[in-house]
Amino acid sequence: MFVHNKRLQYTVRVAGPNPGLANLLLEQFGGPQGELAAAMRYFTQGLAELDPGRKDLLMDIATEELSHLEIIGSIVGMLNRGAKGKLAEAAEEEADLYRSLTGAGNDSHITSLLYGGGPALVNSAGVPWTAAYVDSIGEPTADLRSNIAAEARAKIVYERLINVTDDPGIRDALQFLMTRELAHQVSFEKALHSIQPNFPQGKLPGNPKYTRTYFNLSQGDEPAPRGPWNQGDGWDYVADPQPAIDGGDGSASVELPSEDENVVQALKQRTASDPDSNPLTGADLGSGMAEQKK
Amino acid sequence: MFVHNKRLQYTVRVAGPNPGLANLLLEQFGGPQGELAAAMRYFTQGLAELDPGRKDLLMDIATEELSHLEIIGSIVGMLNRGAKGKLAEAAEEEADLYRSLTGAGNDSHITSLLYGGGPALVNSAGVPWTAAYVDSIGEPTADLRSNIAAEARAKIVYERLINVTDDPGIRDALQFLMTRELAHQVSFEKALHSIQPNFPQGKLPGNPKYTRTYFNLSQGDEPAPRGPWNQGDGWDYVADPQPAIDGGDGSASVELPSEDENVVQALKQRTASDPDSNPLTGADLGSGMAEQKK
Amino acid sequence: MFVHNKRLQYTVRVAGPNPGLANLLLEQFGGPQGELAAAMRYFTQGLAELDPGRKDLLMDIATEELSHLEIIGSIVGMLNRGAKGKLAEAAEEEADLYRSLTGAGNDSHITSLLYGGGPALVNSAGVPWTAAYVDSIGEPTADLRSNIAAEARAKIVYERLINVTDDPGIRDALQFLMTRELAHQVSFEKALHSIQPNFPQGKLPGNPKYTRTYFNLSQGDEPAPRGPWNQGDGWDYVADPQPAIDGGDGSASVELPSEDENVVQALKQRTASDPDSNPLTGADLGSGMAEQKK
Amino acid sequence: MFVHNKRLQYTVRVAGPNPGLANLLLEQFGGPQGELAAAMRYFTQGLAELDPGRKDLLMDIATEELSHLEIIGSIVGMLNRGAKGKLAEAAEEEADLYRSLTGAGNDSHITSLLYGGGPALVNSAGVPWTAAYVDSIGEPTADLRSNIAAEARAKIVYERLINVTDDPGIRDALQFLMTRELAHQVSFEKALHSIQPNFPQGKLPGNPKYTRTYFNLSQGDEPAPRGPWNQGDGWDYVADPQPAIDGGDGSASVELPSEDENVVQALKQRTASDPDSNPLTGADLGSGMAEQKK
Amino acid sequence: MFVHNKRLQYTVRVAGPNPGLANLLLEQFGGPQGELAAAMRYFTQGLAELDPGRKDLLMDIATEELSHLEIIGSIVGMLNRGAKGKLAEAAEEEADLYRSLTGAGNDSHITSLLYGGGPALVNSAGVPWTAAYVDSIGEPTADLRSNIAAEARAKIVYERLINVTDDPGIRDALQFLMTRELAHQVSFEKALHSIQPNFPQGKLPGNPKYTRTYFNLSQGDEPAPRGPWNQGDGWDYVADPQPAIDGGDGSASVELPSEDENVVQALKQRTASDPDSNPLTGADLGSGMAEQKK
Amino acid sequence: MFVHNKRLQYTVRVAGPNPGLANLLLEQFGGPQGELAAAMRYFTQGLAELDPGRKDLLMDIATEELSHLEIIGSIVGMLNRGAKGKLAEAAEEEADLYRSLTGAGNDSHITSLLYGGGPALVNSAGVPWTAAYVDSIGEPTADLRSNIAAEARAKIVYERLINVTDDPGIRDALQFLMTRELAHQVSFEKALHSIQPNFPQGKLPGNPKYTRTYFNLSQGDEPAPRGPWNQGDGWDYVADPQPAIDGGDGSASVELPSEDENVVQALKQRTASDPDSNPLTGADLGSGMAEQKK
Repeated sequence: MFVHNKRLQYTVRVAGPNPGLANLLLEQFGGPQGELAAAMRYFTQGLAELDPGRKDLLMDIATEELSHLEIIGSIVGMLNRGAKGKLAEAAEEEADLYRSLTGAGNDSHITSLLYGGGPALVNSAGVPWTAAYVDSIGEPTADLRSNIAAEARAKIVYERLINVTDDPGIRDALQFLMTRELAHQVSFEKALHSIQPNFPQGKLPGNPKYTRTYFNLSQGDEPAPRGPWNQGDGWDYVADPQPAIDGGDGSASVELPSEDENVVQALKQRTASDPDSNPLTGADLGSGMAEQKK
Repeated sequence: MFVHNKRLQYTVRVAGPNPGLANLLLEQFGGPQGELAAAMRYFTQGLAELDPGRKDLLMDIATEELSHLEIIGSIVGMLNRGAKGKLAEAAEEEADLYRSLTGAGNDSHITSLLYGGGPALVNSAGVPWTAAYVDSIGEPTADLRSNIAAEARAKIVYERLINVTDDPGIRDALQFLMTRELAHQVSFEKALHSIQPNFPQGKLPGNPKYTRTYFNLSQGDEPAPRGPWNQGDGWDYVADPQPAIDGGDGSASVELPSEDENVVQALKQRTASDPDSNPLTGADLGSGMAEQKK
Repeated sequence: MFVHNKRLQYTVRVAGPNPGLANLLLEQFGGPQGELAAAMRYFTQGLAELDPGRKDLLMDIATEELSHLEIIGSIVGMLNRGAKGKLAEAAEEEADLYRSLTGAGNDSHITSLLYGGGPALVNSAGVPWTAAYVDSIGEPTADLRSNIAAEARAKIVYERLINVTDDPGIRDALQFLMTRELAHQVSFEKALHSIQPNFPQGKLPGNPKYTRTYFNLSQGDEPAPRGPWNQGDGWDYVADPQPAIDGGDGSASVELPSEDENVVQALKQRTASDPDSNPLTGADLGSGMAEQKK
Repeated sequence: MFVHNKRLQYTVRVAGPNPGLANLLLEQFGGPQGELAAAMRYFTQGLAELDPGRKDLLMDIATEELSHLEIIGSIVGMLNRGAKGKLAEAAEEEADLYRSLTGAGNDSHITSLLYGGGPALVNSAGVPWTAAYVDSIGEPTADLRSNIAAEARAKIVYERLINVTDDPGIRDALQFLMTRELAHQVSFEKALHSIQPNFPQGKLPGNPKYTRTYFNLSQGDEPAPRGPWNQGDGWDYVADPQPAIDGGDGSASVELPSEDENVVQALKQRTASDPDSNPLTGADLGSGMAEQKK
Repeated sequence: MFVHNKRLQYTVRVAGPNPGLANLLLEQFGGPQGELAAAMRYFTQGLAELDPGRKDLLMDIATEELSHLEIIGSIVGMLNRGAKGKLAEAAEEEADLYRSLTGAGNDSHITSLLYGGGPALVNSAGVPWTAAYVDSIGEPTADLRSNIAAEARAKIVYERLINVTDDPGIRDALQFLMTRELAHQVSFEKALHSIQPNFPQGKLPGNPKYTRTYFNLSQGDEPAPRGPWNQGDGWDYVADPQPAIDGGDGSASVELPSEDENVVQALKQRTASDPDSNPLTGADLGSGMAEQKK
Repeated sequence: MFVHNKRLQYTVRVAGPNPGLANLLLEQFGGPQGELAAAMRYFTQGLAELDPGRKDLLMDIATEELSHLEIIGSIVGMLNRGAKGKLAEAAEEEADLYRSLTGAGNDSHITSLLYGGGPALVNSAGVPWTAAYVDSIGEPTADLRSNIAAEARAKIVYERLINVTDDPGIRDALQFLMTRELAHQVSFEKALHSIQPNFPQGKLPGNPKYTRTYFNLSQGDEPAPRGPWNQGDGWDYVADPQPAIDGGDGSASVELPSEDENVVQALKQRTASDPDSNPLTGADLGSGMAEQKK
């Protein structure tokens, strides 16, 4: 069960209105790397987790991410508060309101026009949040790796936002939020490696014939760059990969019951192309070529 | 530039038709953990990559994933070939076609009805592939972590598919594909750690006050489970976290120009709730309570 | 700031595994009328709310909906727990696992295959949750009406789920959840009507010429049914509505600068259709008609 | 069956080109609160409605909303007509066309570049319309409440558009459209309350233990604000809500067949975390800490 | 302006309830090739069309497609009517309702559970309709080609539905609807070719060096199949295409201001991979290899 | 199997940075008419194709479109390279970075902030690519028509981009890409017409009663425009179409088992509207009318 305290985890002090910046900050509210994605990622994993320690970890962090969502949403609300009031009360001439709506920059018009200045679960382009951003699959060593990566991405988006913000109160809050992503990332790393072995994830081993093979499939700059990802340490480097590495003919086939096969052949026949034709086409008709051909 | 060879990277031998299994395999064709997501993830990263070694790595693997997409799509096509023919040629009575369409199980009806038995870029629920699955953000140490996690997830989905497949040719191909995810994962791990330092990703350091703090925000099972993710190694464990960790009052505030402030106050006034009223409501009207009140 | 207690708001006792039912229950987890939609609806409204009483109300209920999300997710997890284990451990023959995966009914295969048996933020068809479900627009009297309607819809979906569930523990929990939607609905009704006036919402009045006009635009069953929505109480019933009710000519026009007008005319000319032609077409070429025409 | 009259329901007179304003107006064409959403909402409800009066009402208004969609689309077309011509005919230098495309503001570039200046079923951020906006669920008293709320939201978006528009012809048309939303809202209110009782919607009553309970789950500002939504009139106010209101232990449990239970335990064992480990992690390797630890 | 007649364009006589078939028919209601997509495609084109004849054509057919949407929706409603009643009234035991909900096949559970048996704007997999299905771009000769193709696809989906339906009344209505797609297709063909020239669409000619070049990029089955699409009639067949057909070096380059270049080099340096390292990785740590290496 | 050559099919020479133009070019990278859509369209068709010639054609062109995707992505990367460096290295003051991020125009902020300057699979409004753009249905004569139309649309979007670009290197590459769409379109036309007959697509003939009927459903401008799409050549023009063209009564009906019928009647009864009531409503309560009525 959740309980809420009206005081934020981190105090938000905004220096003045700025709907354009508000819109950029939506990346961390309703964007793919934002706090709702984080909270839902850990919450759904936590619900299905069998290990009590990991379940606790996931629920602790999910709850903190909800609190971060609240911080970001509060900043967005503060940055938009003046614009919200002016549009709702029609406090300026139409042309002035139009100019401030459109002139605040990037996609901030959508926050005002559609959402009335409130924080909305969209990214900075106005695209609604989707659970397609949540990549949990219910296997702990895979999901922990996903969580590590998600925290890494969120850290970077916070860094970019800090780089474009000069309001000291917002910078301060964003630095707190960015730092927490690092702390979470470390926790997930520890949790991953407290499961041993954790590689390969899951239960089935790989086929040893292909676990350390590297296919040089992007060519044209000989010699191809090499590095620890394809040399040394057991790597089998295939410089010029060929199809059908299994030794077969590289085709796809299926054993069909004969009545199915007959039907497929009938379909193939009915829709066959005549390679020896030179048909007149719609493009010919449209480009005057039909006339020439006659 | 890409070149295609009509022979597959791995030969596909399907024992017989099975539209239900075909539909499950769509997870790795047009699903979130599937081969298109993998190919597009590495391809888009590779295009923007500045480091020649990593660019080569990303393009090598992107190209291989396209070849895997082709393998999965070919299996799906083989499993559906009979059903495709029968529906196109109307080779059975309507009621029989209806039964086989609906009875093949899971969501296979959509593959037949909407896609004519061909492999479609949807997952096993029929949800179209979306680039929202691709989480690249253009920072190499974050993106490499995302790639490691993506390979881990793909490995698990292949493992599940192998667990439900008894066609030996398909199992063989799926095992190859699963193994390749492991090989890619190892390459990405090597690439990540050949960048040093790689943690924290990006350029800004965290705020040291909060990098090793752990908030016990999910409570109620005292003593809470502990583990290396929140004990030892420098962790500062906050057993009962309180709001406003920055020492402020936990509120959100903004400095508004006075004309903005006036407008906001006017809006607040106009839409104020009267806490001391006990209004008759639509629900009262709908439940007969309005009568009683009078 | 949010805090979580590991104990649920309502105890969940599930009588036995049932992945098919689990999948149906996802409607209230990641579906359009589900608990995440409810929580996010009230949370985002609350963040931007200026009135302290309504802000408190919205945050109270948002927090409760998160707790409901947890209840539903926990039921889903319990119903799937056996299936999750069997697939992860490959505890049965492939053909048996395939049968149970596909045979559990409706879209439960996706929960197992893609999400490993955990609750996922999708509806019962496997469609990912989207913030397009959240219709808040940042005006309190409109948003409160949206909230009333949302609670009404959620109540109905719970009622339907209760009607198809015979597990007594689940029925009990669903009845609690359904009842809470009613309580929330009453609170939102009270909050709406404690703002006076609340109709029309917003600040601009309607144009009195059209506020009580009713256009009988669906015809053909004379006499058309009448009711309080179009008769009595000031309604002006237009039995046979005509275009251009404003008295104009019903056309759309724009004053273009002359250079724009010239360009538009050039475009119109360049792409004009010749109404007097009888052109040969691609369809003619494809149906053998081209031959006949010559 | 539908019939169309080429004259609009309301004459459209646009004073001059303005692609930026056109893009904002797309909110009411292809946006979540726009006319297509309204038309489809009532049309789909009407098709399934059993009551002849309500069916007529729904079809009357659905038809009118289609006519409103046409009005908005016509305004958008007029505002973009000049831009459409210039881009299609390449009537200006590239740099000038680039500047006018990008400089018209907000997201108008997408209307020109992708849709050639025609009205497209996207909102003002360029997000395609989705049926996820239509929240009909097929129960009349719930759907009528949804309709009332939808009209309220649409009214507000029109009001905002009027507030930013100074073209008198467009303002006039928008005021007509806004007013019609109010008229429809009144009709739906009447239709709702001509069903008695209409609360609670559906057939199942709530559990009387919880229908008038209010949980004070957002805390920290004592005394919490009170109002008619949680005081008086039968409300049971729970000042400090605790988990497991049903009197149980607040846990989630399932009775598993013993073979399922064994498999689940095997899975739990295989993936258990070791809480007493202090493992070296990838983050350690990436931050130079691995060296220090040795 | 639209007007509606309550009588359908084609009488619908359904022989009995069948929620599974109803769900399949949703393909033509809310699916990508369905009637809403058709209606919206022509309606949005018609609104922006400059040519009076084509505008009339587009509006005529758009209006007819809306009438077809109504026919399909009415069939769906009839097929689901019994199921709707039983679920709403809870007319059977829970277990029986569960069985009929889940056992009706394909995705019909979603129509009942979420939409109450009414026709919903989703396809047969439950995926909501999206305007991403509408591919109009505002150039008449391109859009007419899109319309021809759309009618062709819709015809095929109707054919498949007819092939799986044995209810004579539904077959009769589907045959009418299928036939109308053919009639529309012919009209669009005529409209396309009454614009001359219509190929190439738009105003810019192609670069003559590449308009009739064919690149044999899919290889491995020598000799490659040939046909009128790559032989005769002016085709220049490139049997073994090489990169950089323009004669350049096939690289991508940009002229950067020197301060930009310096920053890019700094970024490249900071994130460079060390190709000569052989780093310990997270996967090593997780597979026990780290121990071996020390 | 695919192989990649690091050299591009066409050399890319960009004159200088321009994030705004980069964002527009994303239309052809991740937009609906872009190169990924093209590649996936032909690739998925090719996988299921039975005819060897068409399969080769589809794979040749799919492979070329992947190479075009690479060209566009490379241009985008070059145009953004400077901005990417400056944001990653924080090479300017925050306020300057904010200004350049927001001031580059259209939606370029999203490319920088979320994607770090790399090419992302979104369109120029930031909307993620979706497989809903791929309209293949697995019938060759329909799919070839779809391909022709897709090439036509892509050509137009390239033309528009050329019209707004004054960088000569980019114009040169765009002209190459535009030209290739024309070449592909001609190939698909040839392939379509080398199948004879190809109209009507599929196997079922239309109902001759309705194949050449034209319904004048958009009225009001008598005489209605006529053209080859509705006159001559066998067209039966219905000037004033009436419902129920089949001669029936235009109603929808279903034969329900009597127990179903009884339940439906019970539902109808329970939710009936009272047409003779004049109920007090929520809107009355909110507008002060309730008081007047008493």
